[in-house]
Amino acid sequence: MKLNNIETNLLDAIANIKDIPEGALNIRKDGQALARSSSSNISITSMSDKPGMVVEVKSDTVNESVHVPVILTQPGFQDKVYNTFIIGERADVNIIAGCGIHNPSHMSSRHDGIHEIIVKKDAKMRYVEKHYGEGNEKGKNVLNPTTVITLEEGAFAELEMVQIQGVDDTVRSTKAYVKANASLKIVERLLTDGTQSAESTINIYIDGKNGSAQIISRSVAQDDSYQGFHASLIGKTECLGHVECDAIIMDNAKIKAVPELWAENSNAVLTHEAAIGKIAGEQLIKLMSLGLTEQEAIDTIINSFLK
Amino acid sequence: MKLNNIETNLLDAIANIKDIPEGALNIRKDGQALARSSSSNISITSMSDKPGMVVEVKSDTVNESVHVPVILTQPGFQDKVYNTFIIGERADVNIIAGCGIHNPSHMSSRHDGIHEIIVKKDAKMRYVEKHYGEGNEKGKNVLNPTTVITLEEGAFAELEMVQIQGVDDTVRSTKAYVKANASLKIVERLLTDGTQSAESTINIYIDGKNGSAQIISRSVAQDDSYQGFHASLIGKTECLGHVECDAIIMDNAKIKAVPELWAENSNAVLTHEAAIGKIAGEQLIKLMSLGLTEQEAIDTIINSFLK
Repeated sequence: MKLNNIETNLLDAIANIKDIPEGALNIRKDGQALARSSSSNISITSMSDKPGMVVEVKSDTVNESVHVPVILTQPGFQDKVYNTFIIGERADVNIIAGCGIHNPSHMSSRHDGIHEIIVKKDAKMRYVEKHYGEGNEKGKNVLNPTTVITLEEGAFAELEMVQIQGVDDTVRSTKAYVKANASLKIVERLLTDGTQSAESTINIYIDGKNGSAQIISRSVAQDDSYQGFHASLIGKTECLGHVECDAIIMDNAKIKAVPELWAENSNAVLTHEAAIGKIAGEQLIKLMSLGLTEQEAIDTIINSFLK
Repeated sequence: MKLNNIETNLLDAIANIKDIPEGALNIRKDGQALARSSSSNISITSMSDKPGMVVEVKSDTVNESVHVPVILTQPGFQDKVYNTFIIGERADVNIIAGCGIHNPSHMSSRHDGIHEIIVKKDAKMRYVEKHYGEGNEKGKNVLNPTTVITLEEGAFAELEMVQIQGVDDTVRSTKAYVKANASLKIVERLLTDGTQSAESTINIYIDGKNGSAQIISRSVAQDDSYQGFHASLIGKTECLGHVECDAIIMDNAKIKAVPELWAENSNAVLTHEAAIGKIAGEQLIKLMSLGLTEQEAIDTIINSFLK
């Protein structure tokens, strides 16, 4: 199978894919599987009752990856998909997801990805999801990811969720349940410009003793864009939780940050810190004294901030 | 006029008053003025249309104080009062408010104090409000303060709001409007024990260029008590705002902390930090190694934390 230019560009932007990769894979294009392959340890099967797939990683599978990117190229396409990921006990895998939209039209393209992730006892998972849109007409690119993740005893998961550019509207919802001795890290990095709007709500319930969770949010809002960030850490037992939220605000943008700590047990230790501000003048001057233009200096600071 | 023992104890607890103090004064007892006096610069007059008073400080009044404590001694008394404070331009004064309830009954005693404070151009005000309840029967002591404060250009205000002990239920609401070059500091310190409940909501709108605001919240929740803290900083222009929230959680207590930063302008710099946790074991051990019992060590740590 050969990918066309548009497909290759989108897949490269969201998942660093230049060509169909080896191993377990599902590329969803405009609501259909463009390519699908299972490996001996990772099976990908269709949902029986609704659009979507079940990715099941066998116990003890280590050093394997699964690519599950989604692309939308048909103008005005509205896609909704339900995906379930089950990571077997003691497995250690990477999931590369992401969604790219190419929409050179006046109609809105939209992808709603509803993900359920279960990381079983003592398993480890790193999950990367990049969102990207392109198209120079008025059609909006809309991406609404919903993720519910459960970390069973001793499990570890790191979720990296990035909005690179070109997403006009996003409502992001992430819920996590952290059991005993499990550890969750969520890193969210969002860039908005123009009149884009991004709302992200993250709720983490630390249910199990010695569970821990960390949320790191980095956002840059430019032009007339808006970003809202709501993060709740609910500590129901002896546990550790931390929320960190840093935002760069520019031009006429607006940013709202609402972290919520909910200690329901006196052995819960919950902390957060946040800062919203513009790029520091000294940083700009320093870079400009090295020969960069003001715009180059701004870009450099933003890029390193969102890295 | 002579104060009885109950009155003296309450006034001492909330306002350090051993006897009727000099200067402008209003002591409200069970809905009536027990004592009232104006000074040449500070007038206290009754509200014309509702229960309460207007405290008006003349421009350029400096180094003066006004005491306006409230006490409830009649079991089951329900008091609601509207007070307005107007601090004249360039004045520099202290206001000592506070409410103490003595309620040895099975009925609920309740005081709702609705305060409007206007700190005029370049004026300075320090406002201290202590809340205290006593009585060993089942009657609840309820204190619901509502404060709306406006800081005009270049004004400075510091509000210290403290709940010492014995307040079974409180719903606290504070709204502030900070104009150009004005500076507001709010310090709130709450202790709850037993089955007490405390909810505090603080909304600060920084409207004026170079306005600044700082909220410091310290809370200790013991036994089965609950504390909820909601603080919003809304930066509408070039301004500085900071929220700091530290809580010690003990026994079966629950604490919720929700600071909200709302940057509506790219020159707004808003930050917050929060931590909820129990008393550090090392701190206890250190104090106990100096000869304190565990309870004495706990009390020492809590007292210094709430200072």
